[in-house]
Amino acid sequence: MSSEQTAIQVPEGYRALDVETLAPYLAGLPALGARLGGGADDWRVEEVGDGNLNLVFIVRGPAGGLCVKQALPYVRLVGESWPLPLDRAFFEHEALVEHGRHAPGLTPAVHHFDPVLMLTVMELLEPHIIMRRGMIQGIRYPRAATDMAEYMARTLFFTSDLGMNAAEKKARVALFCGNTALCNITEDLIFTEPYMVHDNNWWTSPQLDDLAAAVRADAELKRAVSGLKCRFMGNAEALIHGDLHTGSIMVTEDDTRVIDPEFAFFGPMGFDTGAFVGNLLLNYFSQDGHATEADDRTAYRDWVLETAEAFWHAFAECYGALWAGRTGGAYPAALFAGPEGEASLEQARDDAIAALLTDTIRFGAAKMIRRILGIAHNIDFELIDDPDRRAACERPALLLGRELLVNGAGYRTIRAVTDAAREFHARAGA
Amino acid sequence: MSSEQTAIQVPEGYRALDVETLAPYLAGLPALGARLGGGADDWRVEEVGDGNLNLVFIVRGPAGGLCVKQALPYVRLVGESWPLPLDRAFFEHEALVEHGRHAPGLTPAVHHFDPVLMLTVMELLEPHIIMRRGMIQGIRYPRAATDMAEYMARTLFFTSDLGMNAAEKKARVALFCGNTALCNITEDLIFTEPYMVHDNNWWTSPQLDDLAAAVRADAELKRAVSGLKCRFMGNAEALIHGDLHTGSIMVTEDDTRVIDPEFAFFGPMGFDTGAFVGNLLLNYFSQDGHATEADDRTAYRDWVLETAEAFWHAFAECYGALWAGRTGGAYPAALFAGPEGEASLEQARDDAIAALLTDTIRFGAAKMIRRILGIAHNIDFELIDDPDRRAACERPALLLGRELLVNGAGYRTIRAVTDAAREFHARAGA
Repeated sequence: MSSEQTAIQVPEGYRALDVETLAPYLAGLPALGARLGGGADDWRVEEVGDGNLNLVFIVRGPAGGLCVKQALPYVRLVGESWPLPLDRAFFEHEALVEHGRHAPGLTPAVHHFDPVLMLTVMELLEPHIIMRRGMIQGIRYPRAATDMAEYMARTLFFTSDLGMNAAEKKARVALFCGNTALCNITEDLIFTEPYMVHDNNWWTSPQLDDLAAAVRADAELKRAVSGLKCRFMGNAEALIHGDLHTGSIMVTEDDTRVIDPEFAFFGPMGFDTGAFVGNLLLNYFSQDGHATEADDRTAYRDWVLETAEAFWHAFAECYGALWAGRTGGAYPAALFAGPEGEASLEQARDDAIAALLTDTIRFGAAKMIRRILGIAHNIDFELIDDPDRRAACERPALLLGRELLVNGAGYRTIRAVTDAAREFHARAGA
Repeated sequence: MSSEQTAIQVPEGYRALDVETLAPYLAGLPALGARLGGGADDWRVEEVGDGNLNLVFIVRGPAGGLCVKQALPYVRLVGESWPLPLDRAFFEHEALVEHGRHAPGLTPAVHHFDPVLMLTVMELLEPHIIMRRGMIQGIRYPRAATDMAEYMARTLFFTSDLGMNAAEKKARVALFCGNTALCNITEDLIFTEPYMVHDNNWWTSPQLDDLAAAVRADAELKRAVSGLKCRFMGNAEALIHGDLHTGSIMVTEDDTRVIDPEFAFFGPMGFDTGAFVGNLLLNYFSQDGHATEADDRTAYRDWVLETAEAFWHAFAECYGALWAGRTGGAYPAALFAGPEGEASLEQARDDAIAALLTDTIRFGAAKMIRRILGIAHNIDFELIDDPDRRAACERPALLLGRELLVNGAGYRTIRAVTDAAREFHARAGA
């Protein structure tokens, strides 16, 4: 973890709520009370936070439910020994509102933010479940690919220099520079620690000891991931979600919502698109571990890769279409008038999307590696109890991550990526 | 100009000083008075600002001199119809101090900053002259190449993610996001207007009418410059000077100082290195216009290109050497230990320097084009009275600018660039 740990500091008036104190708090906010119906005595409060950082409550009343998320001044997973600034809740709320404006219907509605308690009250998403959990069960989500494509195309485009006025963008960049502690977590946990000996790291051992050692000794890989880190730190392309894995998506078969943008800041777009694609690939490789006699998951595994392909194609189409109405300073309309100008702009757009595919592949690969060797693993793999079986799934995923991170620029289509996944999977099974 | 013009606003207490009111003002600041010696009555004040934006005074007293620069709330070149925020003086002072810390002896010493009058009092540089003026006279500056290399290597490295802690850098990025009005000038005047019909543009006419029209019709060029603009707007690599042409450098034969960083913000390093190289190339092409019977400037022209070559080699060496002591988060030392790690890091460094050369060439080319077709021209060319002779110098410079902007990535060494300059010059003379 960071060398910049500081003592826990909380603002005047901050206190962590619990299942006892939340209802009286909400009772003081009549608009929220009205959504729940009845009085505080009628409300049922559960704490359901299964993430690493925060408290999450579900509150149900006679008229409806609410979701309440409150930041704790330390990493919940670790405890008070790892302090974390509360203002990440401020940035999360800012990003949630801004992304919600750009991608209507693809984020939860926000009802209330308390800047002292660092607490956000949102729409209770029901009967949604975390996409990752559904995918482990083998549930198909027909809308997920196109909804996530639309979410990313719109949030990234409209917060970039293509879709936003320069002065407004600079003001937003400046604001989100304050979210540096969360950026620092990404810099350490994703781009650095998995590639060195570090107390935070763990993996399926001894099965993957050889690969973990190979990664630590892989000069080319370490150079490549450090180059990515440098881009992550310095490329203020757009307001990215910053943690867009399948655990940050809540779904039903016909609805998709992106939650938890507390890592949001102005960074490279490919970090978001890559997080989604990389986590689909991780799930793909985990399917053998969830196969049963009744369902060998072959068909579902195909669906996962088809989802990655459909996502990228829909993203490229939606993002490309937004260029036509660009209102930001980059690629000014005056320089691209007439049929020749339009054709030239199309070329620029295709070049940009091709470059973004490379970023997507490489950032996605970094995500794959860190989920197998770093501090925070995915339940896609962790729910596979037998370590031999788990390692057999993780091994080709890790090898593909290495390949895509180092040679990502050579993969010119999403199909080339999914074909590589098929090949690495087949080779592992052979 | 920008669509975001706003009415002139000045802070409470701001007033523009003049040759009458400056001495009494300085008399109120004993430390400055002591530098001048005697009393206010003994001080001689001249206003010498020949730039586009500000008041510049030279004050001399019995004991020494001072240089005083004050921002006006509008573009001096144009008048009150083009308002410009005074706080650019704040950013200039911030950058001057920060760059001076990283590159000691290569900026003027700063004695005082007044945040109400937006006025900076600096060391009076004597007998320095503006490098551009010296080069027009054919004066050689033996230290310029290595001094400028050291200035850029150190200021860019130490304000990047290689030389700076992430949290500190983000705080500085946020601060300089406030200098958006000056960034907007660059975005419009360098990356947009020269490529379209615009009232601000002018050129040696009718001699260059064909080239100006060709630039406006050049889809590939407009696409390339818009891609550069996008990088300028979104790549927060390092705290760049932002206007590093030869008019921002004061020299003697054995001293070099960089002045006027009011366009400073966190942007792409290549914008600074390119400004210097591009302006050397412009001077190279201007030399035929300054030739006399006694001096045909052939030897000096060679010296100009040798200076560009020496600059780049010294820059690459100095910047590369700084990687060894890197203290920022990118390329963490823990991942590059031992001989193999060192070799890998060397590769990463060489790759980064190669990429920076491409940026240097392309941003430099954009600077060349805008100085011939845009609003603000260089005296390198403007002091050539005969328009035919001037146009004969500008034409190959503009053609080379076009070539380097579009095909810059194909030039893998600085020598390839200077050879292209020699070739374009020879071809124009043939």
